Amino acid sequence: MSSHHVVREKQEPALLIANGEACQPDLLGQLLEWSPTVVVLDSAIWRVFDLGIKVDVLLGDFDRDLDLDTIRAHQYPLEIVHAPDQNKTDLDKGIELLIERGYPAVNIVWATGRRADHSITNMTSLVRYKDRIRPVIFDDHSKIFPLVGRYEKWYAAGTPISLIPVGTVSGIVTEGLKYNLNDETLTLGYRTGSSNEAERDGFVRIEAQTGDLLIMECWD
Amino acid sequence: MSSHHVVREKQEPALLIANGEACQPDLLGQLLEWSPTVVVLDSAIWRVFDLGIKVDVLLGDFDRDLDLDTIRAHQYPLEIVHAPDQNKTDLDKGIELLIERGYPAVNIVWATGRRADHSITNMTSLVRYKDRIRPVIFDDHSKIFPLVGRYEKWYAAGTPISLIPVGTVSGIVTEGLKYNLNDETLTLGYRTGSSNEAERDGFVRIEAQTGDLLIMECWD
Repeated sequence: MSSHHVVREKQEPALLIANGEACQPDLLGQLLEWSPTVVVLDSAIWRVFDLGIKVDVLLGDFDRDLDLDTIRAHQYPLEIVHAPDQNKTDLDKGIELLIERGYPAVNIVWATGRRADHSITNMTSLVRYKDRIRPVIFDDHSKIFPLVGRYEKWYAAGTPISLIPVGTVSGIVTEGLKYNLNDETLTLGYRTGSSNEAERDGFVRIEAQTGDLLIMECWD
Repeated sequence: MSSHHVVREKQEPALLIANGEACQPDLLGQLLEWSPTVVVLDSAIWRVFDLGIKVDVLLGDFDRDLDLDTIRAHQYPLEIVHAPDQNKTDLDKGIELLIERGYPAVNIVWATGRRADHSITNMTSLVRYKDRIRPVIFDDHSKIFPLVGRYEKWYAAGTPISLIPVGTVSGIVTEGLKYNLNDETLTLGYRTGSSNEAERDGFVRIEAQTGDLLIMECWD
């Protein structure tokens, strides 16, 4: 785990900490090992400081009376990015900042749980950025990422894999799942591919013709 | 709070307890007052028994070795509905059972939190049933229900109200919100109406021409 020590700039994913439900410290610790750059969204900053985590960038609209002087006094140096656009969520702004700065990937935590409106908006907005960065949301029960092109990964038999269409996704073809799809269409709210699983130890392959598909690895 | 004592059959909503994250006991207690019929999904049954709640119907595919004899011994009588269809979630089956039995509405708890695939599937599947029953999901941070026809309700100024399209929703017109929509289109993953709010004490009105819209009242 030497990623903190030998950092080739912009090779590793950044870590984006949003303002939803905190994950287990173990998960956060693992992600920190692999994500040298830490971006924190708005009022999550004090929860992150309380965990003793060094932050690179604090980003937000700061409309909740966050005392930036006290924050600067707590950790110096700290880059503070004021992003007031009301048409975007803080998570959108964080991802867009990392795209601008050339990061190839971003691991996102604390983006789910608590408020359902924030959770569903955060999860589904990943599809908007999928061609410009590789975004992955992690929480204590889920790993969530958009399908881009053809997906292929080795899984142990029985690993839960859900296909969640953001809207309608057509031409879905899978291999290696217990319930494979053969040029089929999924539509959110009507037919999703939740609670599928790897049929055996081996590769799972997923592709789709049109639309935005989220792949979720989830566990109880 | 006399709903337990003077029950006019099928006038009150049923309460459906799913198998996600438990809510605060206070919320569950309030919903129990107003929902004389309690339906529990599959392995949530022991968590519900542990809270001392009397259950009317246990429904599930029971593929996780639930010992039905022990359950029957714990509470008698108890109606047990075996619903093995692998193409539907347990929540779907529970809602469909209540539609068949003529309930006008269903309050749903423990349907969010924990696994993201289950959460998003449960929330968005409400739209599929909106013309046959009035479904509402409650958790500790959210009240979630589908728009049917024209929605009108009095809110205190500043109450958070989010409009979450399940797919694409067009012709959305609102009144009384801080950021009103005037014949506009929302698309999940691209443009949602998350984190809007009541502009002042008074009525909020929401309607749409096509598509499935979820209305969410959420709080931190």
